[in-house]
Amino acid sequence: MQAHNPGSHLTRHHHVTIGTGAAQEDYDFHTRVLGMKSVKKTLFYDGAVPIYHLYYGNDRGDESSLVTTFPMAHTGVRATPGSGQVSYVSLSAPSAAVDYWRARLLEHGFAVRDVERFGERYVDFQHPCGVNYAIVGVDGDVRPPRSAGPVPAEVMLRGTHSIGVSTRSMDFMDEFMEVAWGGRRIGEDGPLVRYALGAGGTGAIVDFVIEPQRRPGSWTVGQGAIHHMAFQVATHAQQAELKFFIEGLGYTDVSDVKDRGYFDSIYVRTPSGALFEATVSHDPSFTCDEPAERLGLDVMVSPQFKANKDELMAQIGYLRD
Amino acid sequence: MQAHNPGSHLTRHHHVTIGTGAAQEDYDFHTRVLGMKSVKKTLFYDGAVPIYHLYYGNDRGDESSLVTTFPMAHTGVRATPGSGQVSYVSLSAPSAAVDYWRARLLEHGFAVRDVERFGERYVDFQHPCGVNYAIVGVDGDVRPPRSAGPVPAEVMLRGTHSIGVSTRSMDFMDEFMEVAWGGRRIGEDGPLVRYALGAGGTGAIVDFVIEPQRRPGSWTVGQGAIHHMAFQVATHAQQAELKFFIEGLGYTDVSDVKDRGYFDSIYVRTPSGALFEATVSHDPSFTCDEPAERLGLDVMVSPQFKANKDELMAQIGYLRD
Repeated sequence: MQAHNPGSHLTRHHHVTIGTGAAQEDYDFHTRVLGMKSVKKTLFYDGAVPIYHLYYGNDRGDESSLVTTFPMAHTGVRATPGSGQVSYVSLSAPSAAVDYWRARLLEHGFAVRDVERFGERYVDFQHPCGVNYAIVGVDGDVRPPRSAGPVPAEVMLRGTHSIGVSTRSMDFMDEFMEVAWGGRRIGEDGPLVRYALGAGGTGAIVDFVIEPQRRPGSWTVGQGAIHHMAFQVATHAQQAELKFFIEGLGYTDVSDVKDRGYFDSIYVRTPSGALFEATVSHDPSFTCDEPAERLGLDVMVSPQFKANKDELMAQIGYLRD
Repeated sequence: MQAHNPGSHLTRHHHVTIGTGAAQEDYDFHTRVLGMKSVKKTLFYDGAVPIYHLYYGNDRGDESSLVTTFPMAHTGVRATPGSGQVSYVSLSAPSAAVDYWRARLLEHGFAVRDVERFGERYVDFQHPCGVNYAIVGVDGDVRPPRSAGPVPAEVMLRGTHSIGVSTRSMDFMDEFMEVAWGGRRIGEDGPLVRYALGAGGTGAIVDFVIEPQRRPGSWTVGQGAIHHMAFQVATHAQQAELKFFIEGLGYTDVSDVKDRGYFDSIYVRTPSGALFEATVSHDPSFTCDEPAERLGLDVMVSPQFKANKDELMAQIGYLRD
């Protein structure tokens, strides 16, 4: 039945979006410590309060190379980590580069923890605002690394490997993953359950951490928690088919198709509590409003704030590269 | 701040929607036992599987007089009751009529249970498919009863009084009710927490039953569980303001505005787990496609099935009045 399941249109990660602290701190962490490229500086497209939306990835900002953030410090709004949330994101690096990363993180003053999950070697650490990250050794990752950043390309991160969703129960999440989201349950490791999407492998993995007694985390956008996970869909027709199918199951809170400037997205709350997004990249995507050679340098203002860029920038501040 | 909170646009219940069993059984229960008027026979507007959407209420199907159902028996899809769901609906009757209703339910073979909640007298019973209903004694309910049904108007039900949402935690639901949904916390009674919307009173009450250890219920549409609760908003401008505001908080899974034929709705998953709807009635609403004197007699086919009514009716069956 997999071939006729609209969930099979979800092929891999697109990006993860995280509520973080101060914008400059967030920018320095991703571009200097992790060596990722700023591929877009824009704003949160929702709401009336100006908040940066910063995109980090490889040279072109390819799908699944992307970590994106909402730096929230100026709003004072904090998130609460807990169950019903994506609780960590892991980033793929060549296995031989894990020692490099472990040493690099320590040099930059980060605490690290060595963990094995599903036979893979993870180095767990935290974003300066407290959100859980990991670097995981993966061989054969064909995604191109950033080519000319502070980290040599041969050891550079390739993109998201897996996310870990903290959930109190898999009662209806197994069904959601298999029926609505086109996933395949491929393994268990202690309290972890692993799903693969599409062709599977790095960049297409969703892990669930079953924590029955953990208090729920917040669902609002705030400093200190991962807000949602986005998955790639190839075409708008596939996205429409997916939306119609999921609504028919009774997940009525599928959002309208939102033009995020560089991709078009729908969102749905999953029974795990985590918010998932299914998105179709624009063509061109990040180069639609600035040339490839200047990608991620200037601030591209989101539609709801276009009228008053000076006032806006006074609120959120310019970033130093 | 209440006056400037878009949540204050939510003034009272609009309808409750329940996944039930066989259509004829559901129809007889609401129209014969409870004496409600069939105000619309239409279909579930989502998905590709034909499912009745039956509306029961007072003579005109006024907002907050409405109980609506998706009879699911022909699909074989069952729901699982649990936490993260609306777990009961109570219907308002004059205090002096509670004994009448208790006796009437017993006569029709229903088990009843006398319960006091917030000092109000409830008679709890179950829909034939197992969903929890209650009749509660309320004086001064100004909503007009059905005038010429099998139950005398002076004892007739007036509409929904309260819902009970089963939730494992109020951790972020208090904030949602107060900030996003414009509610006021007005009381506690054991494991129950009571919120009022708008002017408060019957038809504007949301109770939460805190059940930390209860397993989650299903979110899909299925036989045997309440699918969502709808609340009334006066204008499309207010609904748009509410949607923009809630999305800005980070509840990104607010649905598009869905034309349900008789009202326009948005849906959002709340931190309690329950699905809430904010809806604007059309003007005219239920009389837009059939005259007042024939309200609820014929089947009004939903847009996605218009092409093949005969084939459709063979699947879902005609109802006997």
